[in-house]
Amino acid sequence: MSEPRESAELRTRAESLDSTDELAKAREQFVLDEVVYLDGNSLGALPAGVPGRVEDVVRRQWGELRIRSWDESGWWTAPERIGDRIAPLVGAGPGQIVVGDSTSVNVFKAVVAAVRMARLAGGGAGQGAGGGRDEVVVDATTFPTDGYIAESAARLTGCTLRPVLPSEVPDVLGPRTAAVLLNHVDYRTGRLHDLQSLTAAVHAAGAVAVWDLCHSAGALPVGLDEHGVDLAVGCTYKYLNGGPGSPAYLYVRRDLQDRFDSPLPGWNSHAEPFGMRPDYEAAPGALRGRVGTPDILSMLALEAALDVWDGIPIESVRAKSLALTDFFLECVAAYVPEGRVESLTPSAHRERGSQVALRCDNAGEVMQRLIARGVIGDFRHPDVLRFGFTPLYVGFADVERAAGVLGEVLA
Amino acid sequence: MSEPRESAELRTRAESLDSTDELAKAREQFVLDEVVYLDGNSLGALPAGVPGRVEDVVRRQWGELRIRSWDESGWWTAPERIGDRIAPLVGAGPGQIVVGDSTSVNVFKAVVAAVRMARLAGGGAGQGAGGGRDEVVVDATTFPTDGYIAESAARLTGCTLRPVLPSEVPDVLGPRTAAVLLNHVDYRTGRLHDLQSLTAAVHAAGAVAVWDLCHSAGALPVGLDEHGVDLAVGCTYKYLNGGPGSPAYLYVRRDLQDRFDSPLPGWNSHAEPFGMRPDYEAAPGALRGRVGTPDILSMLALEAALDVWDGIPIESVRAKSLALTDFFLECVAAYVPEGRVESLTPSAHRERGSQVALRCDNAGEVMQRLIARGVIGDFRHPDVLRFGFTPLYVGFADVERAAGVLGEVLA
Repeated sequence: MSEPRESAELRTRAESLDSTDELAKAREQFVLDEVVYLDGNSLGALPAGVPGRVEDVVRRQWGELRIRSWDESGWWTAPERIGDRIAPLVGAGPGQIVVGDSTSVNVFKAVVAAVRMARLAGGGAGQGAGGGRDEVVVDATTFPTDGYIAESAARLTGCTLRPVLPSEVPDVLGPRTAAVLLNHVDYRTGRLHDLQSLTAAVHAAGAVAVWDLCHSAGALPVGLDEHGVDLAVGCTYKYLNGGPGSPAYLYVRRDLQDRFDSPLPGWNSHAEPFGMRPDYEAAPGALRGRVGTPDILSMLALEAALDVWDGIPIESVRAKSLALTDFFLECVAAYVPEGRVESLTPSAHRERGSQVALRCDNAGEVMQRLIARGVIGDFRHPDVLRFGFTPLYVGFADVERAAGVLGEVLA
Repeated sequence: MSEPRESAELRTRAESLDSTDELAKAREQFVLDEVVYLDGNSLGALPAGVPGRVEDVVRRQWGELRIRSWDESGWWTAPERIGDRIAPLVGAGPGQIVVGDSTSVNVFKAVVAAVRMARLAGGGAGQGAGGGRDEVVVDATTFPTDGYIAESAARLTGCTLRPVLPSEVPDVLGPRTAAVLLNHVDYRTGRLHDLQSLTAAVHAAGAVAVWDLCHSAGALPVGLDEHGVDLAVGCTYKYLNGGPGSPAYLYVRRDLQDRFDSPLPGWNSHAEPFGMRPDYEAAPGALRGRVGTPDILSMLALEAALDVWDGIPIESVRAKSLALTDFFLECVAAYVPEGRVESLTPSAHRERGSQVALRCDNAGEVMQRLIARGVIGDFRHPDVLRFGFTPLYVGFADVERAAGVLGEVLA
């Protein structure tokens, strides 16, 4: 527990950090109140521009223009257009991302397509071109849905699922490996995995790499193009602030798009969707990842939410994110009684996402008490307090206050 | 072309029909203007209660309660709750419908699950329990996405896709048939298929019936439970007025739910979704059809849209729908020069949905001229004018006016 002198010093530090924070003004673009919201890694706060845009979509685009809005309001092209808005945040050039469906559905598309690509490319263990590639490797610590969906994708493509720790991935890769599904940042611990070296290892084995960016996109540079990632998926309701259940996205690297053979070839991915042809012909480019009619309300709310990123380099976001989590860990060390919490989040910057996970006895009850006192994080079964730091609207004074309240609750 | 006396007589008839229309007041629950909107079978008009509800969801539930809304605003349970609101409109008891994902994605879940069910049930042509069931039969005149998705489902389950006309379905069913995917109403011609007898024929062959209700739900009684349908899917943005791309739904008959083996076993369908267990265990009941995080904005807009059905029996909707299409065909016969259009929609009531499709030379251009004159239908490649009649907000005077404008355009 800190001495009064120490809290005063940390408060002064927080003030000073906030006063020189180049992203401080971004907070004005969000609807916030007196709570300290450290759950933006579960549901991002409401960007102030969203309600007006949604009202226009509902009242004018749907209510007045009705069916004409598919053309006149740009509804039909929204999945690609909004994909291109997300692209710079994850280091992708244009024309490689489409928005739509849930993350789970996109994981399914990506893993099935990855297995098919790996087999086409050949070099597998068995007979024929890539015929021996019958393993899907998945991060054993993944957010569960990725594992469940990867297992289904494996079952439907005649593969076996092989869950391993990310650190063990290089050791299990080989001529049987078809696809590898990995999380950029672990949802529970906040550990950041080495996308570059793991992707290179997957490629060296002749397999296809699928990355889940749910907990990294919008919080740190991803570098999809730079690191040669094959396929990637991510949600948009965490650091991208798209709103509850806003549609996810799918990245297919440009030179792989012709080989992207979707297990969900809905009419929106057809080369001539209004030709109403009985035979399927996949569209060129990223829109081959589309499926059915896009959910326009959620999608255009997301589009409005992305306006907050105008002029904000992801590198600045990353710098502030690390400063926030460093400062939080420092404040926790100062304020929380010895031995009451243990950080599961790596201390090395290169291994840390934008959250801090603290193991704590009675974590569920502790989180309820924090929430009652205006510090919003979340509880992850069985014993984790999870705090997410969204650099666009979380400040250093928030961080100091959150750690202070945690210290009082655990005193 | 009609004589002036004939138009006067039809206008008087329209007035009389509108004055005795028991659903006339339902129109007040929609945002409408001076156009005749006959495209509600593509995108339903805006229910007046939706904008206020969406604003509350965005500003208060997301903006103020944020993450708490998953519990406090009922976000988490929305897919089942809204499914139960749709259920009475399609003749289903509660607990059998979940809302979420696009129609295409639901077709995929349903067809893969149907093949698996058929094989479990056995009785197939080959070795072992149902092992010989390797055909998926699909309506050859289907809206294309159903065919594309059924083909993918067949490919992933080791089946062959067999497209046949609905009238030929009974003849091709046999011990090789696993699943049959049919449309209740043909999207192009408006033909209503006999759900009861076709389902019985599928069952007699030991196969599983999947019905697409996109063009029937909300326009006529479906009778899912009564007719023993196995699985069904449908969209909610046509006669259910849920808004552009609002989420689709999936029906799984209660006694089949334990055997519903989803190809998209996302974490929302887990028996213990917040247990974050690495092993998948399917939830009981309809929510086994869920996948990922539901898109709350679109979903709760749909929930508000369903309020317009309170106190409206689907039988009254059907009676008015038939009266509207009868009257439209009569007005078209009176107003349109002989030989300029030909109805593709069956004249027998038992074979007619809630739309009229007219074959017409230069249909694309004709539709543009109709739209310019305030009559909104749609054009379907290559030569079809399609007019949808939504009994909740289309009146008989609208019908007379639409036919009159069509007659003038084609004069």
